[in-house]
Amino acid sequence: MAVNLAGGLCIGAKTLTNTPPKKSDAHHHALGQHPLLAGLDDAMPLRTFSPDQLNSVAAEIRDVLCNLLATRTAHFASNLGVVELCLALHCEFDFRSDRLVWDTGHQIYPHKLVTGRYHQFPSIRTRGGLMGYPNPHESVYDLFMTGHAGCSVSTAVGLRSGDVVGGQPDRRTVAVIGDGAFPSGIVFEAMNNAGELGDDLTIVLNDNKMSICPRVGAVADYLDRLRSNPFYTGLKSEVVKLLERVPMFGDPAERLLAQMKEGVKAGLLGGMLFEELGIRYVGPIDGHDIALVRKYLAMARETSGPVLLHVVTEKGHGYKPAAEDPVYFHTPPAFNDDAGTLTTQKSDGHPPYTLHAREAIRKAMTEDQRVTIITAAMCQGNKLEPVREKFPDRFFDVGICESHAVAFAAGQCKTGLRPIVDIYSTFLQRSYDQIFQEVALQDLPVTFLLDRAGLTGPDGPTHHGLFDIGYMRVFPNMVCMAPGYAAETGMMLDAALHHDHPCSIRYPKASAIELDHVPAPIEIGKCEVIREGADGTIVAFGAMLEQAIAAAESLDGDLDVGVINARFVKPMDEAMVHDTVAGGKFVVTVEEGARMGGFGSAFIESAVQQRLDTRAIRVLALPDEFIDHGDRNELLHDHGLSPVAIAQACRDAVPTGVH
Amino acid sequence: MAVNLAGGLCIGAKTLTNTPPKKSDAHHHALGQHPLLAGLDDAMPLRTFSPDQLNSVAAEIRDVLCNLLATRTAHFASNLGVVELCLALHCEFDFRSDRLVWDTGHQIYPHKLVTGRYHQFPSIRTRGGLMGYPNPHESVYDLFMTGHAGCSVSTAVGLRSGDVVGGQPDRRTVAVIGDGAFPSGIVFEAMNNAGELGDDLTIVLNDNKMSICPRVGAVADYLDRLRSNPFYTGLKSEVVKLLERVPMFGDPAERLLAQMKEGVKAGLLGGMLFEELGIRYVGPIDGHDIALVRKYLAMARETSGPVLLHVVTEKGHGYKPAAEDPVYFHTPPAFNDDAGTLTTQKSDGHPPYTLHAREAIRKAMTEDQRVTIITAAMCQGNKLEPVREKFPDRFFDVGICESHAVAFAAGQCKTGLRPIVDIYSTFLQRSYDQIFQEVALQDLPVTFLLDRAGLTGPDGPTHHGLFDIGYMRVFPNMVCMAPGYAAETGMMLDAALHHDHPCSIRYPKASAIELDHVPAPIEIGKCEVIREGADGTIVAFGAMLEQAIAAAESLDGDLDVGVINARFVKPMDEAMVHDTVAGGKFVVTVEEGARMGGFGSAFIESAVQQRLDTRAIRVLALPDEFIDHGDRNELLHDHGLSPVAIAQACRDAVPTGVH
Repeated sequence: MAVNLAGGLCIGAKTLTNTPPKKSDAHHHALGQHPLLAGLDDAMPLRTFSPDQLNSVAAEIRDVLCNLLATRTAHFASNLGVVELCLALHCEFDFRSDRLVWDTGHQIYPHKLVTGRYHQFPSIRTRGGLMGYPNPHESVYDLFMTGHAGCSVSTAVGLRSGDVVGGQPDRRTVAVIGDGAFPSGIVFEAMNNAGELGDDLTIVLNDNKMSICPRVGAVADYLDRLRSNPFYTGLKSEVVKLLERVPMFGDPAERLLAQMKEGVKAGLLGGMLFEELGIRYVGPIDGHDIALVRKYLAMARETSGPVLLHVVTEKGHGYKPAAEDPVYFHTPPAFNDDAGTLTTQKSDGHPPYTLHAREAIRKAMTEDQRVTIITAAMCQGNKLEPVREKFPDRFFDVGICESHAVAFAAGQCKTGLRPIVDIYSTFLQRSYDQIFQEVALQDLPVTFLLDRAGLTGPDGPTHHGLFDIGYMRVFPNMVCMAPGYAAETGMMLDAALHHDHPCSIRYPKASAIELDHVPAPIEIGKCEVIREGADGTIVAFGAMLEQAIAAAESLDGDLDVGVINARFVKPMDEAMVHDTVAGGKFVVTVEEGARMGGFGSAFIESAVQQRLDTRAIRVLALPDEFIDHGDRNELLHDHGLSPVAIAQACRDAVPTGVH
Repeated sequence: MAVNLAGGLCIGAKTLTNTPPKKSDAHHHALGQHPLLAGLDDAMPLRTFSPDQLNSVAAEIRDVLCNLLATRTAHFASNLGVVELCLALHCEFDFRSDRLVWDTGHQIYPHKLVTGRYHQFPSIRTRGGLMGYPNPHESVYDLFMTGHAGCSVSTAVGLRSGDVVGGQPDRRTVAVIGDGAFPSGIVFEAMNNAGELGDDLTIVLNDNKMSICPRVGAVADYLDRLRSNPFYTGLKSEVVKLLERVPMFGDPAERLLAQMKEGVKAGLLGGMLFEELGIRYVGPIDGHDIALVRKYLAMARETSGPVLLHVVTEKGHGYKPAAEDPVYFHTPPAFNDDAGTLTTQKSDGHPPYTLHAREAIRKAMTEDQRVTIITAAMCQGNKLEPVREKFPDRFFDVGICESHAVAFAAGQCKTGLRPIVDIYSTFLQRSYDQIFQEVALQDLPVTFLLDRAGLTGPDGPTHHGLFDIGYMRVFPNMVCMAPGYAAETGMMLDAALHHDHPCSIRYPKASAIELDHVPAPIEIGKCEVIREGADGTIVAFGAMLEQAIAAAESLDGDLDVGVINARFVKPMDEAMVHDTVAGGKFVVTVEEGARMGGFGSAFIESAVQQRLDTRAIRVLALPDEFIDHGDRNELLHDHGLSPVAIAQACRDAVPTGVH
């Protein structure tokens, strides 16, 4: 395919008028402000729109996004960046039958707005409302519910393969993947397969020079080079002419000439990383020029085999503050547009576990030169910027590459270091096999900090961290703990760093309570008794201690209920299990995680092993289903983990005849 | 770094005398046959050996390997291929302090033979003997116990980073990775990080043109092109001279010239895939020329930053039958050297579950055009060759890329196909996150066949499939089953393919018993009663049904023990749990998997949920430790899962006063 660059990086991009966010007191903005969007039942009419109309739709989308941001936290800058790309895609394809996969999915808002969901849009990221990610239950235009990065190319290769095998080759397939997600290993695996299969497929590389944090890694450097690589047609043909004069004879010489031409093309055009894998590289092009993107999408659509279209966009495009600080504006808190100042996030006054963990990390790195910290593009989410600034030589952001992060930590461990791997519970699932082989099997003292372990709130099922208790505790040698209050976070990190085996510490996206007591020192496999109770015991694992204490206190005068801070799911405190269960009094276990294989399951494993009577044990945990998005407290309430529900479980668990 | 090719692919390779395997009646070969190896307490003396002596060591190693193969199944062809590479590595580095990671690890035999383990070598892959993979417990020369592919580059990047941070920069780091493992996603993630960090590191790409099966994928095609790319020094300089005459003025022109030179270099030399990621590419060179490999290793060692040295070897080199059929000789059964004919593997006469699964797959694909089969380089291990031959358009080997395999299947599913993903239990761990997001969350009817689910025998802890019960059953929407006898394998596959949700079927590397009964039809979540028993029940999950029946029969006349074929761990048959537990009689659950979170755990979860008295339940499963290698039956016996041990557990479980 002939390639023609539109004058280099973003030259030709229309600088859209900055649309200031509108103040809004209610969830619902005035729909009358967006006549084009309001009239779109699906994306089909876009194909008939004039260029001016499409630009107007783009402006309306940005207005909706800014309105939304005035009311609540949501993904913002990434959505501003893909407005034109989204419109161009829907103009060139019919995604009611063609296949579109948005990688990761937090950039889905413009797509939702033009596929029949404009009127529901104000509900996004609220309980019962639209999801902040693609959702097939909402629309035929959404194929996969996603949230974890990097899988779009694989699913797209599968979609295309399926359409080929199933005799539907006219259905086209497009994956849109950001440069931040691109280095994820599965993308390489997918390209390896796509290049071999050779099926028609368009991969749009949405290059905004950002992961959630500033992106890292050699692939990023490579994309930078591609973008700085101008294309001079005239000069190219002159070079080819010169090459043709090189004296060569016979077949080998001709092959060499062909190779040299390819080489010259590589040097001039770039993209060899993809071309070497059998994927046609086209670009880079300006992703904010709708007509230009349409032209190249049409070319890609008609090209045989896999094509990678490199589209350069600006994260936060069209709203100046976001374009200037896309890290902050990735998921900003609701803001006040008139003053242009940022309001602080609502809080109950207690800092979240994440901040306590950050301070503990900083302290540990100050005291022990062997301690390093490894994150997978979650520097911002884990609030680690100050740690990076203070210890740049011991701070490692490996990008959205969780598998590598864990194996890399294992390597560091072998040299005597004490790496901390700080990754969200749900994303650490991507390194299950490395936790198994590189860490647990070698019995290496890697410390895992599992942030967002529990219900993460408005992000929903892809981001809730519900499975880590089950997946971590099965590994031999692994210690699994969870703090129940603020001070315990640092105590547990300290204990982990002094334990010569792998350790994991899980905590939710929630504020950490402060307890007015002298914490018992951390002893591996030993619980902490928070209060004694004559009638029964609530055994809480991790941050649910807050709800457990509240439940027990609410029962005072009715039932005398003890509360135990379990601290460990592995090793389980067998003596605690015995003492709480053996007397025949009730035990209610409480955890913020999946019931199957979780803390309660481990507790009853121990009780059965000890031949105890388990009939007065009640396990409170999250049910065997994917949990929708919503406020954490709403979700805890919905699933029987509120203080009220825990108290009720205690009442129900009292053996008949006692009360 | 200047690069000089030794005349193309394998030109200059010494064709070593084919060393016929020696007949051996015992495990121990005559040590006197290998005077050089016998004298090596560690690898240090190799550095003083003459080229002739090194070639003699190579010949001795091949002799040992062929002797071994006469006695037992072991990895063979891959080890023959790396003999010279291994010797060159130990000549150029001191891996008592330098860091060497062999990816995957089944090619470790020559390394073991020259690092002080020659005299123990006959014990390899037997219980209590040397492991068939790297093992740090055996030697300081082994850093990581491995078996899963692709992680060596990550751990090597971590090792180097650790040595830099820890102030030990003189320790050099080398990863050796095969071309089969190379497309694994984590390698890309590691290169992305290595290219950015820029730390010194040598990655030896051992290119033998093979995965375990013939390799697949675009990376493989790329390596083929690299190998066919001759280097003509004289011509190259002429081209550069021509390029220098291209008229260009000013800075942009100079940059362009530089780019063109790089491009020409790429066309001539190849390796741009790596160079683009900031990794210096050197090669390809002949990996059977010890002096040549040493020369390039020395260059790489002294080069700043990461270097990839492309070494071409022949799998099976030095033993003609293996070189000619490296697939068969990857892990051949013990062979008879004199006749040159292959003896058949010992068997109890019953075909393994793997073959029953294969036949069921073939039948399903014949009957239903929507059924596809996806494997991750385990075409041979899963005995799928006849399926590939019969249904080439619906057979997909994606290489050692398990994450992609699962997401690819999900994509196919969305188009209406019914993909079967056939992967070993332990390797499927590598797609935990894709099972979560791409399959379970979307509730797509992908069928997972988990081969090698249980104790795999001589491969040991990296290959035992002990965690899948725990990791599969936590996912909402997933159905998890396991056949207890031969006929059930196909029945379950049929049930899975008719169930509109994700399903998994696990079975071990073991022969499948035939039962003389009419099997009950498969009903999702329902067990099958094999025999009634008045005194108690053994509930077996999967292939342990064989041991359970044997145990019950052995008790006849003493205890009247029922046997239940659980069939499902999810959904658990709640009625079965109730009926077996509620009467107060004993229940012994039996499974070939990890105790934590496993079948027994699910059983007691249900019992506790139903408020049953669990005191007469005994859970028999594998303990919370990594299980060594050894014969499956030996290991089952060691861990209380033999018929004798199960019978004893029944006796112990009888509630006091009954017997």
